[in-house]
Amino acid sequence: MDTRFSSAIHALILIAASEKPMTSEDIAGSVGTNASYIRKIIGSLKKKGIIESHRGISGYALKLKAEDLTLLQIYQAVNEIEAICLFDLHQNSNDKCIVGRHIKSVLTEMFMEMDEAIILALSGKTLADCIGSIQRRLDAAGNGCPRE
Amino acid sequence: MDTRFSSAIHALILIAASEKPMTSEDIAGSVGTNASYIRKIIGSLKKKGIIESHRGISGYALKLKAEDLTLLQIYQAVNEIEAICLFDLHQNSNDKCIVGRHIKSVLTEMFMEMDEAIILALSGKTLADCIGSIQRRLDAAGNGCPRE
Repeated sequence: MDTRFSSAIHALILIAASEKPMTSEDIAGSVGTNASYIRKIIGSLKKKGIIESHRGISGYALKLKAEDLTLLQIYQAVNEIEAICLFDLHQNSNDKCIVGRHIKSVLTEMFMEMDEAIILALSGKTLADCIGSIQRRLDAAGNGCPRE
Repeated sequence: MDTRFSSAIHALILIAASEKPMTSEDIAGSVGTNASYIRKIIGSLKKKGIIESHRGISGYALKLKAEDLTLLQIYQAVNEIEAICLFDLHQNSNDKCIVGRHIKSVLTEMFMEMDEAIILALSGKTLADCIGSIQRRLDAAGNGCPRE
C-alpha cells in the first residue's frame, strides 16, 4: 500500500490551514504515522517548490496558493515523476508476428488516453477543494474551521 | 513493472484473430515471454469467462465477442479485482485532530471520482478497438490482416 499521495494531501491541508508553521512531528501526529515518513514526503514537496521552510523557524509553510495547487502537482511531486503512466507495457513483443510488431504503438496510444483521463481528473481538483470539503463537514457538524 | 494487463490484451488479440485455437506457447512467442507467465494470465481470463478451452483441443478461444469485451473487464480479470482503486488511503488518521477526523471521507469521495474517470475510459474501449487499431496499421503498411 502506497499512501504517500493521501498522506501528502493530509499534510498540505494541515500546512495550509495552520496559522503557525507545522513541523513534521505535528503533521505525523495527525496523519497517524512517524515523523521520518512525513519528512520524506516533505522533502519531495519542497523539491517541487510546493512548500518551504524558513531558516531559524521550525516547520513548513505553503509556497503556492491552495487554489492553485492541483492534486496532479501533489501526485507528481510525491512520486517524483513528470509523466503519468498508469499501465506498464511489455517490451519484448516479437516483431516477426504482425500483432507483436504493432502492439506497442497500439497500446501506447490507448494507454495514453487512459493517462489523459486521470491527468484531467487530478488537475481538476485543488488543495482548496480538499480544504473546502473538510470545511463543509465541519460546518455540518457545527465545529468551527480547520485552523482550530 | 506489471505487464499482465498489456500482455493479456496482446494474448486476446491473438486469440481473437487466430483461425485455430492458440496455445500458451504460441502466445508467449508473440508476447515475448515464457509460457508459464501466459498460463497465469490465461487462468485469470478463463476464471472470468473471457476465454475458454475445449477438452481434447489444445489452445484457447474467445468466449465473448471482441466488440463486447472492454479493457475494464480485461483489467479486472488479470488483476483479479472488482473495484478499481487507483490511490491508497492512509488508515490511521488521528480522530482528535479535526483534519484527521474528516480526511478519510474527503479523500474517499475525491479518489472515487478519479477511479470513475479511469473506469469510464477503460470501459469505453473494447478488444475490437485494439484489433481495429492493429488492422489500420496493417492496412497502412499494406500487409494483410492480423490472421496472417
